[in-house]
Amino acid sequence: MKMEKNGNSIVVDSNTLSYNDRVIFDWSVDPVAFIGRGEEEVEMYRGNFKIEDYLITRIPLDKVDYTEADDQIKLSLSCGDSKAALVIIAKFDDLGRLVLALEGDDKSYNRLWLRLAANSDEKVYGCGEQLSHFNLRGKHFPLWSSEPGVGRNKETLTTFWADVKDKAGGNYYTTNYPEATFVSTEKYYCHTNSYAYADFDFRNDHFHELQYWEIPDSLVFETAPTYKKLIEKLTGLLGRQPQLPEWSDNGFLLGIQGGTDYVYNTGKKLIDKGVKLAGFWCQDWEGIRMTSFGKRLFWNWEWNGELYPELDKKIHEWKENENLRFMTYINPYVAIDAKMYPEADAKGYFAKNKDGGTYQVDFGEFNCGVVDFTNPEAFDWFKNVIKTELIDFGCDGWMADFGEYLPTDVVLHDGTDPMVAHNKWPMLWAKCNYDAVQESGKWGEIVYFMRAGATGSQKYCPLIWAGDQSVNWSLDDGLASTIPAALSVGMSGCGLSHSDIGGYTSLHGNIRTKELFMRWAEMGAFLPFMRSHEGNRPAENFQVFDDDEAIDHLAICTNVFTDLTDYRRAIVKENSEKGTPVQRPLFMEYEDDQHAYDIQYQYLFGPDVMVAPVHEEGKSEWDVYLPEDTWVHLWTGKEFKGGNYTVASPIGQTPVFYRKGSEYAELFESITSKYK
Amino acid sequence: MKMEKNGNSIVVDSNTLSYNDRVIFDWSVDPVAFIGRGEEEVEMYRGNFKIEDYLITRIPLDKVDYTEADDQIKLSLSCGDSKAALVIIAKFDDLGRLVLALEGDDKSYNRLWLRLAANSDEKVYGCGEQLSHFNLRGKHFPLWSSEPGVGRNKETLTTFWADVKDKAGGNYYTTNYPEATFVSTEKYYCHTNSYAYADFDFRNDHFHELQYWEIPDSLVFETAPTYKKLIEKLTGLLGRQPQLPEWSDNGFLLGIQGGTDYVYNTGKKLIDKGVKLAGFWCQDWEGIRMTSFGKRLFWNWEWNGELYPELDKKIHEWKENENLRFMTYINPYVAIDAKMYPEADAKGYFAKNKDGGTYQVDFGEFNCGVVDFTNPEAFDWFKNVIKTELIDFGCDGWMADFGEYLPTDVVLHDGTDPMVAHNKWPMLWAKCNYDAVQESGKWGEIVYFMRAGATGSQKYCPLIWAGDQSVNWSLDDGLASTIPAALSVGMSGCGLSHSDIGGYTSLHGNIRTKELFMRWAEMGAFLPFMRSHEGNRPAENFQVFDDDEAIDHLAICTNVFTDLTDYRRAIVKENSEKGTPVQRPLFMEYEDDQHAYDIQYQYLFGPDVMVAPVHEEGKSEWDVYLPEDTWVHLWTGKEFKGGNYTVASPIGQTPVFYRKGSEYAELFESITSKYK
Repeated sequence: MKMEKNGNSIVVDSNTLSYNDRVIFDWSVDPVAFIGRGEEEVEMYRGNFKIEDYLITRIPLDKVDYTEADDQIKLSLSCGDSKAALVIIAKFDDLGRLVLALEGDDKSYNRLWLRLAANSDEKVYGCGEQLSHFNLRGKHFPLWSSEPGVGRNKETLTTFWADVKDKAGGNYYTTNYPEATFVSTEKYYCHTNSYAYADFDFRNDHFHELQYWEIPDSLVFETAPTYKKLIEKLTGLLGRQPQLPEWSDNGFLLGIQGGTDYVYNTGKKLIDKGVKLAGFWCQDWEGIRMTSFGKRLFWNWEWNGELYPELDKKIHEWKENENLRFMTYINPYVAIDAKMYPEADAKGYFAKNKDGGTYQVDFGEFNCGVVDFTNPEAFDWFKNVIKTELIDFGCDGWMADFGEYLPTDVVLHDGTDPMVAHNKWPMLWAKCNYDAVQESGKWGEIVYFMRAGATGSQKYCPLIWAGDQSVNWSLDDGLASTIPAALSVGMSGCGLSHSDIGGYTSLHGNIRTKELFMRWAEMGAFLPFMRSHEGNRPAENFQVFDDDEAIDHLAICTNVFTDLTDYRRAIVKENSEKGTPVQRPLFMEYEDDQHAYDIQYQYLFGPDVMVAPVHEEGKSEWDVYLPEDTWVHLWTGKEFKGGNYTVASPIGQTPVFYRKGSEYAELFESITSKYK
Repeated sequence: MKMEKNGNSIVVDSNTLSYNDRVIFDWSVDPVAFIGRGEEEVEMYRGNFKIEDYLITRIPLDKVDYTEADDQIKLSLSCGDSKAALVIIAKFDDLGRLVLALEGDDKSYNRLWLRLAANSDEKVYGCGEQLSHFNLRGKHFPLWSSEPGVGRNKETLTTFWADVKDKAGGNYYTTNYPEATFVSTEKYYCHTNSYAYADFDFRNDHFHELQYWEIPDSLVFETAPTYKKLIEKLTGLLGRQPQLPEWSDNGFLLGIQGGTDYVYNTGKKLIDKGVKLAGFWCQDWEGIRMTSFGKRLFWNWEWNGELYPELDKKIHEWKENENLRFMTYINPYVAIDAKMYPEADAKGYFAKNKDGGTYQVDFGEFNCGVVDFTNPEAFDWFKNVIKTELIDFGCDGWMADFGEYLPTDVVLHDGTDPMVAHNKWPMLWAKCNYDAVQESGKWGEIVYFMRAGATGSQKYCPLIWAGDQSVNWSLDDGLASTIPAALSVGMSGCGLSHSDIGGYTSLHGNIRTKELFMRWAEMGAFLPFMRSHEGNRPAENFQVFDDDEAIDHLAICTNVFTDLTDYRRAIVKENSEKGTPVQRPLFMEYEDDQHAYDIQYQYLFGPDVMVAPVHEEGKSEWDVYLPEDTWVHLWTGKEFKGGNYTVASPIGQTPVFYRKGSEYAELFESITSKYK
């Protein structure tokens, strides 16, 4: 049987269900669904999760019946003679998307595995932000919001020590931003309407096995002739990030802490030495506390006038007189020793424990309440904290940190199972910020950035940041990891991302070097947003403002960044209009280049600029791959055809090329002529 | 319905199957069996296995029908309406044991899970040799023969480096000798007639879940009023180890290498300084090769006259003139550059690869053929190698090493699936040695010892050794680990075990110290067999024969060992007659003492001697637990009642106590009077 709508087709025959000529389910040999029951054990330690499933049953639904009625095809899946354990309704939505609505009869089943037809050459991208693998084929990916991990590779000593000391080593799949959404090289996307724990297994030649710890509401599919069109459709479904405020084009956001005068004077010093400064990003506006991890913030979400005297006046003076913006920091937890805690606690704004008391989460030597976003009053209260303490105070942006720590034994106001609320939390947290900005009428002026994400981040989070990299050169947790992170989150519909220039986590012997900072800053010039971080232990790690040579180098990087403004604005606009990511995988522009599909440590910055960041120490040359085209090396003006090249890459000149045929070629040439 | 035989009963009602009043199956709430299909991936690297199962189905057999006929009760287990997927025939064997014979209809099922009823207080012991946990409750235990691992604890650096460099770190369950046999504190044993991969899960309060990667032939149960009686019954089923040859009571077996004169002269030096020497154990009688792991043996199973000139004469002279025995070494692999390889290969005695060629196994920088014990001609050939090259040559014993490396992609002569043959291999290797000694009529004169084991080792392996400990103090892989190893293998029916005095593996920074050797030797005096090992890197590690103080210390230990001969002979005899292990858990003699069930780093040496080996560095006192009784401290004669004590434990005096009421009290007193 066949249904058609707006040029789309759903066909079901005795063995398969197809959508626009892609086979989605094929039950000719093996079942396409398994249903069962599991009992999970979840341990959280400071945002790091140990999750084990004791699988009780996994029943193959190998009998498929189908009937057509009312513009939908109903597949009834069962095991042998018993009644249907799962019903899949295949239908079009109003735009002709394929919707597979799922219904499970028996509530005792809490596990579902669906097998989507695949072929052995197919590649798969997305699943939110993935830091170790861009092409997801060959691995399985548990989808669960968590700390990303320190090291993220069980074969490194950093990971070993992080595991042993803090249960914090992570793994290739640990991420702040998982999402049950992917794009296949069969030119379809598959999005699941579910926030439950999931594990997408792309290891098999002939199927993708999608595991869910619930029976999801539905899966949605669309197809398109190109990846750009596909992402446009995906972001049509999930939402698109707005454009960045124009002031972010002014240059570098200096991540710095320490008080009004110190911050300002340091910024002035940079400006005086030629750095294009857009403003300050000061986490510690609300005060600090010391822990063994390093200097930590106080987590009381209002201006600390002792540490930042006169900030209430300066924030306006700096903006008006010097066009310098002030960004700050907030997260959705409140320290139990914070000023705002008692009243909020009394009003029941924090999530509860099973005994009815306030659930306290350990964030590393201090405890916090969890703002319960499922309680509309709590949501509004915290939204108003953002509006009054941040927006009305004059902040032009902030890091909206965390969101991944919702414990799974918490009791929520609306009764949601925390196993389902957990992955949704980053979306609720994003929406709280979004509503605050929206209600303040400040889009176009304000930007906040988040590491945690979920379905909905596309709409509610205007800027992703890649989380807390280690201050090292490791592939899984250093500078390099931010590239697959941006590419995968871009394939998931969030095309604006960036990272802490210099990295963040200095633990277990990792200390940021000057070279690491400089290489990261070089890449930063080719990101949509250019911001540094002092790291978790500022005093022990390299800081740019302490080093004249590094300031000179940063000055150049920030000048390149501002020189690129017209081009960057165009690609940022394209992202806001069509979802086309600012950092793109090579294959998005060169679909016929098979090699392009396997590259995860280079990216296209918009359609015309190829960036191959140097992500190893002590390199003066670097291997790059160029798809078939005419490329101009940005730092020398030398032309290249497609192919593999080893190019000079002294400090200051991470390999960057532009397409000779770009409509912005003149802009790029002007940069070349400045620096060659 | 109820059946009875020899005082035993099988009762089946609508919810349960019971045997001698123990509920074995209880299907009142949850299924007692699940059947399914999995696809395993097995990677072997030098005896270390990475095994992952992709579980396709796990179907609950929640419908149970039962019928009685012909002295058996037939349980038909099915899922819903379909026909029985599993039939369990409950019956008595001729001795009144409960036999549960299993029959699966559908050959596509290759996974079975059985849930035996359990209670939350119950404890479980056995499963072959387990080095990290004696009481198995609270963990699951994959049962698969492998290298035991270097470090065996993912939180240690030794394990980390062993994993990263050699995939060899192991885990708490990795063992040379797994067995699908356990003893419950409900005073039953459960033995499964299966060599397939299994995973016994003792984590649940109300059931033990036994997973098998086949449908096993049968499970066998017996009950008894005491643990001794239970082990007597278990060894009645599985076989018992013979007594040790009397010459092993003569003292210490010096593990040494280096050639005829060097070996002899070193032994003489020890004898001259008061060491009671029973003989030499020389691995390198067949020559050596150097690898990065250290000095390795050549693996050509005949005397190397270059390294051991005149050994053919000396071996007899030493025995006749000085009562010094010569033990040597063999394993069931043949190096491809060995003299005996070409002919054996030409005759097809080695296991094949899928292309029909000889399968070569990498043992660490050299390759070997695997003697195919499923080929009767190959079995006989290798048995005759043992008979002619070892026994006829005059050896009085040997290490029968390895047995765990059968690759799972090998092609065997009799067509057995290597996934099933793998765990059986150690038994076949043991039997090859057994038959050689048996046919030579040499029981009582010869002893060989093995680390690899399987069901059948009880009969075919006269002496276990605990494998390759690291030369350190770690609980999971050092001196301490040999105690739960001996206790668990004893509960599995092998009551004669011992370990390399001084440990073996010196890798990743572990170097044997004098103190470690001395502490190990102190324990060695209270083992059935007292033997040292030079280790894998003799030159870098402490060797007793290089140190006068250590020789003096060893002299005392060996004198204690020989002083204990009458007592030791009695308990070794008891093991051969009833299977009562020589090293016993405390609860075996003190069943009412609940604390005794949790002690795994002390043991009873026979009924009357409590040994609490010092297994940490730099200790001059040690905590011991004594069950309610009157105990005499062996080194001082001081009396103790039951309780916890901290006792002095200077070097030379690892805490040992004897029961004042022992019939060997006089013997023990004589030792006390010598050393106090």
